[in-house]
Amino acid sequence: MPLLGLLPRRAWASLLSQLLRPPCASCTGAVRCQSQGTRDLSPQHMVVREKILDLVISCFKRHGAKGMDTPAFELKETLTEKYGEDSGLMYDLKDQGGELLSLRYDLTVPFARYLAMNKVKKMKRYHVGKVWRRESPTIVQGRYREFCQCDFDIAGQFDPMIPDAECLKIMCEILSGLQLGDFLIKMAWKDVRHEMVVKKGLAPEVADRIGDYVQCHGGVSLVEQMFQDPRLSQNKQALEGLGDLKLLFEYLTLFGIADKISFDLSLARGLDYYTGVIYEAVLLQTPTQAGEEPLNVGSVAAGGRYDGLVGMFDPKGHKVPCVGLSIGVERIFYIVEQRMKTKGEKVRTTETQVFVATPQKNFLQERLKLIAELWDSGIKAEMLYKNNPKLLTQLHYCESTGIPLVVIIGEQELKEGVIKIRSVASREEVAIKRENFVAEIQKRLSES
Amino acid sequence: MPLLGLLPRRAWASLLSQLLRPPCASCTGAVRCQSQGTRDLSPQHMVVREKILDLVISCFKRHGAKGMDTPAFELKETLTEKYGEDSGLMYDLKDQGGELLSLRYDLTVPFARYLAMNKVKKMKRYHVGKVWRRESPTIVQGRYREFCQCDFDIAGQFDPMIPDAECLKIMCEILSGLQLGDFLIKMAWKDVRHEMVVKKGLAPEVADRIGDYVQCHGGVSLVEQMFQDPRLSQNKQALEGLGDLKLLFEYLTLFGIADKISFDLSLARGLDYYTGVIYEAVLLQTPTQAGEEPLNVGSVAAGGRYDGLVGMFDPKGHKVPCVGLSIGVERIFYIVEQRMKTKGEKVRTTETQVFVATPQKNFLQERLKLIAELWDSGIKAEMLYKNNPKLLTQLHYCESTGIPLVVIIGEQELKEGVIKIRSVASREEVAIKRENFVAEIQKRLSES
Repeated sequence: MPLLGLLPRRAWASLLSQLLRPPCASCTGAVRCQSQGTRDLSPQHMVVREKILDLVISCFKRHGAKGMDTPAFELKETLTEKYGEDSGLMYDLKDQGGELLSLRYDLTVPFARYLAMNKVKKMKRYHVGKVWRRESPTIVQGRYREFCQCDFDIAGQFDPMIPDAECLKIMCEILSGLQLGDFLIKMAWKDVRHEMVVKKGLAPEVADRIGDYVQCHGGVSLVEQMFQDPRLSQNKQALEGLGDLKLLFEYLTLFGIADKISFDLSLARGLDYYTGVIYEAVLLQTPTQAGEEPLNVGSVAAGGRYDGLVGMFDPKGHKVPCVGLSIGVERIFYIVEQRMKTKGEKVRTTETQVFVATPQKNFLQERLKLIAELWDSGIKAEMLYKNNPKLLTQLHYCESTGIPLVVIIGEQELKEGVIKIRSVASREEVAIKRENFVAEIQKRLSES
Repeated sequence: MPLLGLLPRRAWASLLSQLLRPPCASCTGAVRCQSQGTRDLSPQHMVVREKILDLVISCFKRHGAKGMDTPAFELKETLTEKYGEDSGLMYDLKDQGGELLSLRYDLTVPFARYLAMNKVKKMKRYHVGKVWRRESPTIVQGRYREFCQCDFDIAGQFDPMIPDAECLKIMCEILSGLQLGDFLIKMAWKDVRHEMVVKKGLAPEVADRIGDYVQCHGGVSLVEQMFQDPRLSQNKQALEGLGDLKLLFEYLTLFGIADKISFDLSLARGLDYYTGVIYEAVLLQTPTQAGEEPLNVGSVAAGGRYDGLVGMFDPKGHKVPCVGLSIGVERIFYIVEQRMKTKGEKVRTTETQVFVATPQKNFLQERLKLIAELWDSGIKAEMLYKNNPKLLTQLHYCESTGIPLVVIIGEQELKEGVIKIRSVASREEVAIKRENFVAEIQKRLSES
């Protein structure tokens, strides 16, 4: 695979380290930054995160990936010399006896260590977890020292370009699914050229001839046109170099995403390290609505091949080829949060469906009985922890927290053997026989 | 609240530290322990965890809790003097400049710090996350140094015993829901007695008189009988002491769980620190099936009140009363994993619904088209990353990974414009028109 070949360990790590950092320049939301460069995630943050992570994980599962987790810290020696210049950003644990440990810096190196340690030769896995980088001064630079990564990787020896194409397909599915606006996945042309000339011995002018095409066109047609150019199609090395690219674009076309992929002439990261192509996804336009400020978010996903990393952990140096991607969820969290903030969208931080209220004093016991029935029926329910709350306070709680239904019990209802069900939105109330109230609520919830 | 009153910070922390440690004595499953006392979680582990955590979190949400997260590390000073003798077990980060940091030891202290820092006076939240304890030698003692905690807490000034009763209700719902067999929630009697005598000045013989009841009876009837005993009901201090207990058991009765709660005469933890009652849940019988070894699992949940902790982080010392519980999920993971192992239950580590296969060579393109259609329709699908895989290999992959449906495309199907759908279990095959195959699969999946 001359063009889309081996991405060495450092290149991969360096890529992820540069592309996918959290973008937040100042603390958004109500939660204070802590002096150590981390932050708490408030319930508001958590709701947005949960929705985004659900979408990402369900895409990973749709592609047959297994879940996995590794410890927050690794032996320091596992992590050293994997991150190039970024090694200084690792958090080391204090030497309190025993082995020297460091907090994981990404999820890729632990995955490679896991594969080698367990002699796993083939695995499609996803991993969502926190990683830590000791950048300083963190808050000023707008980067948090703790952030979440969402990785999908395919390890194993397979026929060329099939897993690579799937990784690009996954990127597209996730970015489309998140509705962040139009996006493009860019491959670094300079790395490709460097690879062709330095590693494959292609004449620089032939490489530049390819570069001309790359600059003018994109996707499948690009590859087709290159093959029609006699200066390329009659050059054995150029043909070899173009073979994998042609294969990849064929598969991307079958997946219906070839138009999402293009080359980027300005991209060039760590030429000393890279021997293959990396790709990154960028949003083409910020989702601007009236009054919304443009968001400078940079890259929202990145990926590539790292065929050499697993071998570094194997005593005999056995290699396991790997290709994968990482979704820049912190940036995506930020975009979605900013958008909601601008729109003034309110987020429900609980999922409570029913509130148990009373207009009268001394009805705690009845409320407790009702709420237990609701809980035992699997209905999400709350009440105030007061012996004698005011009805207005209770109804206001429902409105401010977005609870859609209220069940009300008072003297009249108790006497008549009924429960009042109130819709918070319409303020309509109906009396339901006590024995039927759970069923009635379930009916209403299933309809809404 | 003389009996069920303040649980000081150290008591709470110490309780959790002692009760809820991961039980695994030797590495279960295929994943090697690492020398640093941690372990990787394999896909098999992850499936079990996901199911258990889903149940726990959905119970927390049913009770109106909001999600929250805090960083893996805190300022060291935040954690010091919160864990009594266990402080030595904290993981400190190396001093690489900046503030001194330590990995969080539980989720309770970070929660209290969060409340104080953001001046939150009222909050019902859950938190699921990793905590770290530097115990040594970890593997021999059977405890991992990294493990998961699932906490639910109610912070705020409320009428007595209502949130406390809800915490016990949540414990019962989760333990019933997990179907781990019968269980009991035990309150530490010795702590209660110590509180009565030392803090409330109750005569030791009166406290012991109460102790006699505690020893003989349980639950509501216990409280009622104590009130009928003139030696107690005519003693003002004893009555005061019994008031909250009576209230609690009243609420537990309304919740239908009073029979699950009893006193434990042997429980006594850190009397120097405790001033209130703690509770812990134990499994009464191990879920023994033929051939299954009895499991010594100890406590699977614990909780109590910690009214003093938040004030420690507030500059003016403002207190926020808190009550909460922690589910010992690591122990529960272990029990469920052991049970499945004994039963020889196989776990599916992927959720793949459909496999795309071909009996012929050179059908990669058709397979790629089909699988993209499936993915784009939200169907979980896999295929082999080979140009020309053997049909038997493909069908064997489905059987070994539990994929229920196969779609097959070959020359015959292509010519006739159909797709074969095969049920892996029954081996039945039907031909469906190409344009209808996604709808047909969706129909089958919704029926199964």
